[in-house]
Parts: sequence; C-alpha cells; structure tokens
Amino acid sequence: MVQTIFSDTIVALSTPPGAGALAVIRLSGPDAIAITAAVFSKKSFANAAGHTLHYGALRDPNNGEILDEVVAALYRSPKSFTREDAVEISCHGSDYVVRQVLALLLRHGARLAEAGEFTKRAFLNGAMDLAQAEAIADLIAADSALSHRVALNQLRGGFSQELRDLRARLIKFAALLELELDFGEEDVEFADRTGLALLLAEVRGVVLGLLRSFELGNVIKNGITTVIAGQPNAGKSTLLNALLREERAIVSAIPGTTRDFIEDEVSIDGLRFRFVDTAGLRDNPADEVEAIGVRRTRQRVSQAALLLYLFDLTEMGPAEVESEIQELTAGLELPVIAVGNKTDLATPEAQAAFAAKFQADQKFPAVQVPLVLLAAGQNQGLEALQTALLTQVRGSALENTDSATIVTNVRHARALETAASHLAAVQAGLDTGFGTELLAADLRHALAALGEITGEISSEDLLTSIFTQFCIGK
Amino acid sequence: MVQTIFSDTIVALSTPPGAGALAVIRLSGPDAIAITAAVFSKKSFANAAGHTLHYGALRDPNNGEILDEVVAALYRSPKSFTREDAVEISCHGSDYVVRQVLALLLRHGARLAEAGEFTKRAFLNGAMDLAQAEAIADLIAADSALSHRVALNQLRGGFSQELRDLRARLIKFAALLELELDFGEEDVEFADRTGLALLLAEVRGVVLGLLRSFELGNVIKNGITTVIAGQPNAGKSTLLNALLREERAIVSAIPGTTRDFIEDEVSIDGLRFRFVDTAGLRDNPADEVEAIGVRRTRQRVSQAALLLYLFDLTEMGPAEVESEIQELTAGLELPVIAVGNKTDLATPEAQAAFAAKFQADQKFPAVQVPLVLLAAGQNQGLEALQTALLTQVRGSALENTDSATIVTNVRHARALETAASHLAAVQAGLDTGFGTELLAADLRHALAALGEITGEISSEDLLTSIFTQFCIGK
Repeated sequence: MVQTIFSDTIVALSTPPGAGALAVIRLSGPDAIAITAAVFSKKSFANAAGHTLHYGALRDPNNGEILDEVVAALYRSPKSFTREDAVEISCHGSDYVVRQVLALLLRHGARLAEAGEFTKRAFLNGAMDLAQAEAIADLIAADSALSHRVALNQLRGGFSQELRDLRARLIKFAALLELELDFGEEDVEFADRTGLALLLAEVRGVVLGLLRSFELGNVIKNGITTVIAGQPNAGKSTLLNALLREERAIVSAIPGTTRDFIEDEVSIDGLRFRFVDTAGLRDNPADEVEAIGVRRTRQRVSQAALLLYLFDLTEMGPAEVESEIQELTAGLELPVIAVGNKTDLATPEAQAAFAAKFQADQKFPAVQVPLVLLAAGQNQGLEALQTALLTQVRGSALENTDSATIVTNVRHARALETAASHLAAVQAGLDTGFGTELLAADLRHALAALGEITGEISSEDLLTSIFTQFCIGK
Repeated sequence: MVQTIFSDTIVALSTPPGAGALAVIRLSGPDAIAITAAVFSKKSFANAAGHTLHYGALRDPNNGEILDEVVAALYRSPKSFTREDAVEISCHGSDYVVRQVLALLLRHGARLAEAGEFTKRAFLNGAMDLAQAEAIADLIAADSALSHRVALNQLRGGFSQELRDLRARLIKFAALLELELDFGEEDVEFADRTGLALLLAEVRGVVLGLLRSFELGNVIKNGITTVIAGQPNAGKSTLLNALLREERAIVSAIPGTTRDFIEDEVSIDGLRFRFVDTAGLRDNPADEVEAIGVRRTRQRVSQAALLLYLFDLTEMGPAEVESEIQELTAGLELPVIAVGNKTDLATPEAQAAFAAKFQADQKFPAVQVPLVLLAAGQNQGLEALQTALLTQVRGSALENTDSATIVTNVRHARALETAASHLAAVQAGLDTGFGTELLAADLRHALAALGEITGEISSEDLLTSIFTQFCIGK
C-alpha cells in the first residue's frame, strides 16, 4: 500500500460545465469513499472492491431529500489517478444538479479542489513525473494531430525516459568525481577523464538536439504565424477559403488581443498555420497614412515565422515582386514563399517566362525564395502551396531535430538551456584541466537542471506555477 | 437475461463539449464491448464482469497509434442505463481527442447516436416508462430547487405510479364492461353501476387535481412572469438588485426574443420569478408616444402571471396608486402586489396612514391587493415582499393542488385533459343510462390517454417528437 501524503479530500467537477447528458464529479483523498458513502443510498459501497461501479441515489441525510440518481465509480489506493482513494460520481449533466451535489459533498467534509490539484497529487504521490503531469494540460489543449501526438508521447513517459537515461549516465560520473573529492588530499583520479569527455560530448549533443526540437515543438503547440502580404486585389481571402475547403480544417478564432489581426487558421498535415493579415499595404501613395501602414506591416512581418507574399500574376512582374519582398524582409531572417495568383488568367508561356525570370534574378541571394503559381479561385495549384509551406517549416525546424522527442514546453526548454551551459562549462573545464571540485559543481548544476524537468528536483513555487495553469477538476 | 431489441451499437459524447479534465463517450448495443475491446489495450476487458472499471490505452489497430489513455466502464445487459451492453469511456477532455476516439469507434462498427437515443432505448427496452424518460430532459434543464425536485420525483416514477394506480382501477371496471358486451344479447350487468359512478368521480377528481397542478408545474418549470409597472423613479432597479443580493440568486438572461423585455430573474424559495420591465409608463403627457407606451405596457401586463406595482411612497397617494392599478388590470384576472418604496424617507405615521387608507379603500373589491412597504436601497422590508410574492403564487396554484405530484409537461397535461373529458362522458352516460357499448368506448379512450403519458400506449411519431428534444449523448 502506497502511503499517500494528504490528509484532506478534494472534490471538483471534472467535465466541462453546461447542460449535457452526464457530468462527472471527482473526489480524491483518504475520506473520498466515506464521504460518498454518507450520502449514497447503496449500502455496500463503502466496503466494495476498487475499480467497481455502483448505481444508487445521492441523498442529503439531513432532510432525506434525494438530489440525483447516479453511478459512483470507486477506486482504491494506490490504484487510482492520484494513487489515493478516489470516487467519480456520474450525475445528470445539469449545472443545478452539479452545484447541489458539490455542496452536499462539501458539507460532508470534502474541500473544493484547486486548479490542477488532482494532477498535482498524482505527481506528489509518485503516479507520474512532472513532465508527464504537464503533458496532461497539453493533451487537453491539443487541437492538431501533431500537438496531440507530442503531448501523448510525453504523457506516456517518452521524454521522461530519455531524460532519466541522460541523468543516469551523468550521475555515475558525478559519483566518481564526488568520490575523488572525498579523497581530495590524496590526489586520486577515480573518474576516467577521457571517458568523461566522450560521455559529455554525447550527452550535450542529445541536450542540444532536444533544445533544437523546441523550435518545432513551439510551432506544433502554438501554430506557425504566417504573415500574408500583398496588394488588396491579390486574392488573399480566396486563397484562404480554398485552403480551408481543401483541408476541411477547423477554422477557429484566436481569443485575446491578437484577434483583430488573425484571419484564419488552416491545419496542413497536422501542422497549424495561423495566417495574419496585412491588408492595406501600398494602398495609398507616399503620405502619412502609408507610412503608418508600412510600419504596421513591417512590425507584423518581424513577428512572423513565415512570410507569404501573394501577388496577382497578371498585374506584377518578377522585378516588382522581388523588390517588394526585399523591402519587407530587409534585416530579417525570415523564410518567404512567393505566391503568384490567377494562373487562369495568364498563358502557360507567360507563367513559364515569369518563373524563369524570377529564378534567374535570384542566383546570388544565399537563400532562394520558392515560387508557387496557382489559381485560388479555381482550386488549382493548392497542393504545391501546401508542400511549400510544409517544406519551409520542416526545413527550418524538423530537419534540425535529431531527437525522437520534441520539446514543446518553455519551462523544459529553459532547463535544457541551463543544463547545456553547465555541460559546456564542464567540457571547457576538462579541456583546460580544471580541478575536480569545479567540474563536480557544474555537473551537479547540469543534473539539477535536467532533474527539474521531471520534478525529481522541485520546489513548491515551481509546482504552484505549473499546476495553477490547469483547469479545475484535473 | 432481457432480450434487447436493437442490433446496432450507438456511440456519442455524453458530457458537454469543450476543454475539461474529462470527457465521457458512451457506447450502447450488442457490440459495445467487442468494439471497445478491439481498440483497447487491456486484454481482459472483453471477458470482464459488469460494473467494473478498466484502465488502458485506446489504440488504432490499423497503424498502432495510441489516441489516449482512458478508463473504460463496462456494463453488461440488462444491468445498464439502456439495459443493453454498454461502455463509458472516460478520456481526456479535449475536443480533438474526443473527435479521434469517436472516429475510431465509428470505424469499428458503432453508429453515431441520435439525440435522446440512449434514453429512447432505455424506454423501449423497458428500463423506464415514457414519463420517466421525459423527466431526464427536465432534470438536465432544471435550474431551481422546485423544478429539480419535480423532475426527480417524476424520474423516480412517482407520477408514473400514480397513473398506474388510476389505470389499474379503471381497467378492472373496463374489463367487466367488456364482459357485458360479450354477453350483449343476454342483457346482463356484471359491472356495478353505482360502484362505477363512485370510482369515476374519484378518478376524475384525481385527474382534475393533476391538471390543476399543471398551472403550478408550468410556473415551476418556466418561472413566474412578473411584470413590474411603475414610474421610472420608483426604484425598480434598486429593488431587483436588493432581491438579488438578498437571495444570492443566479441571475441569468433568457435567450431569444423576449430578452429585450426581461430585466432579471430572482429565485425565491426555489421558485423562479422572471421580472419584466415596463419602464416609460406615464413618462410623457397624453400624446401619441404615451399612447404607444401604455398599449405596450398593457400588452405585457396581459401576458403576466403576476403584477407588481411599484411606487414612491413620498410621491404618490393611495388613491393615485389604486387608480393606476385599476387602469392597468382592467378586464384582467391578475394577482397584484402594491409595493411602496422609500420607507426611509417617510415617517412611520405617514406609512401607517397610507396603509390604513389603502386598505379602507379596498373594502368592496372582491380580491384585495396586498400592500408591502419597503426601502429597497436600505435592504429593508424585502422579506415581506418575498412572502407576498410566494403567497400570491401559491394562493393561485399551490393551494388548488391536492395531488402530491405536479404535472410540468404540456404533453402530459393534454393527455390528462383528454382523459378527463372522456371520464366526464362516461359519467354523463351513466347518469343518463347510456348503453354499455358507449360507456366502454369512452372508458377505453380515457385509459388510452392515461397510458400515453407513461408510454404504455405509444406511436413511433410520438417517440420521435419526444426524444429529438433531448441532447445528443443522452
């Protein structure tokens, strides 16, 4: 029997609020079963085995009034999500019923759970590590195939296992270094310096690989901010609608302050692209209004992960397109795709001539701008654009990711950065023949940073900041 | 073992959509367990006992991809909500995960459930009668203590039992009448006509009592439309705010077309009062604008269940208040409460004088208008108003309800009306010595009407119209 460490029993609604067929109210803690039994008509409940379901009525013992007919799922410690005794009550999905049931359970000794408190208990009771606990919040928020897969892999401990392997290898050497320190006066070297150098290079390589994966991880979790620039008649809305139809993607508005700028989201091959509008570019001649417009457009472009320059093939020549792109991206390291619209209005010869001229002009720049020609209104050439979008993202992130694990969490990325810098210090120390004491200290710091990710090393502040981002009932 | 009558297995999300800790996906039908087992990592699931919980991963067998880690609750026929084999899968509460899990189960042979289809199966498989099934929708929609209590009583079969008792008594006599018809030529009277007359009077009394309870039932289910009339400075908003604070009621806006008129809802002693504004009354002198205002106010008053005439004690005398009320309610049978506000600005003597004069003036009207004096801004006298509100509602409905059951459903009320009219016909037939054949026919119609309520007699059209009002997943 696992000894759980909490003396109080928490309760919360675990399903979304609102009317529905079912609502699930979750209790966890030493009195979860006793509190439920006190208000439950099924007398055998209190002594039933774990992992069983029980149908009965919830009744307020004070006035005998029945609140609802429910099914109570009973979990006995340690075989539950939190490793504590736990009960999940399925009642009718009415906010009124839920309020009444919660109030009844609170009167009988439960306490309302804080956000993320069930998961926090699961972590503190050893049911999962911190990275796994964080993956639950990511999993709930996941809205594309890739973000879901990454979160689920993390929940199932893939990332944690990789970190544990790294730490285990470092800890062996750290222990030998600490042993040298104990025998400090005698100037013994237990740890093989050459072996340590090789191991360090390898571990640091893995950490840096994980860090590189964060770029893609961030893209997977938050979507790729793709600024579309171009003159108003270039066909931006038509293009977006065509992409939406094509992919049957879920269109959603982003809440909050950025909403005004974001046009639409399109999911391509599991990656979410967030298209940001810059309408109004070059609408007016050089005056105060245009100056403001260009400044705003440049600001949005500077925050983008990708620039899609859309133009009307029948209106602009290659030179004009190139100079517009150059003006927009001056001083920025930003992947760009040039998209020529309205192929239905241009002859194949004209298109070929445009493409040839566009490519010829780009002989010298280090990074070439890919060109896609399409007819958005006719749904022609969209696959080429989708391929170009994916190539740009994967070229900049995916191909640099040699780890099977993808880091999506800012906290994890920070810890990996700290670990990497301490590992670099150890490496430098080895190269320049630093004393054992300094090497051991840096190695300890690196180990601590890696341990923070899985919560092997944690503080109350850290836990609070992580779990308060959860929803209530989780 | 109950033989269930459906060959297909249905599936739906049973918890409200949106992000949350948990989402529950429900399967019911002969293949519910096999379909789940085909995508579930826990191998012992398919042969497990009913009423057990199973933790494992949902995996797409086609590509080996894991969709989520879940708990599956297993119910074996006939011990389930629908009496069929059933599975409830608790997965992480993300719309993305839910969509993926539903798609997986659909690919493995389940069919998406229609609105109310689980409850419809529960009814058709004999787990509950129609009135109980309808109570589930009422229970989910319940938003006050009384509407919740009434729905729960109906769900638990209180109303159904009462109807079954009535029918059982009528059926005995109907059987004797039918027997007489079989021996028609011989002019025998098996049925005791005096006994039948007594029974009829009794049963008809119960049916009429249930019908009368519908007035209250409607009030409980839909709230009491209370029009507040009065001059703009009378203190209506202050009064509403005071009532809200006092009762800590849940304020909610009513969706739809009536929204513009409804100010606020206050729950008093479990009854919901919907206050409707008539601001602007008498704002202007007699002109076209005032004419329109008065017409609109009169229209709202004519649709009200209760009129609350609010006035400023320091501004209006008893005579003026009385004439305003008379003008507003002319030709209407409408309970009225006169509410004098701002007692804090009037001396106790002035208040007593006002009350005495107001009462003296009302010696002759058949129905007296109760007077409440209060100071809304000071939270004084609110209890008296609450008591007056409850007295008016209960006086008009509750006290006329001699049945413990309260009818809330329009369909039930219609069926009761039909039954009552046929029972009246039987009674008249007995009085005037009608032939057995006519009596038996009317008795059959009355029995059919009562049977329709619980679904002992039902048609596919009726069932469709009832269950499509449910939410999906129930």
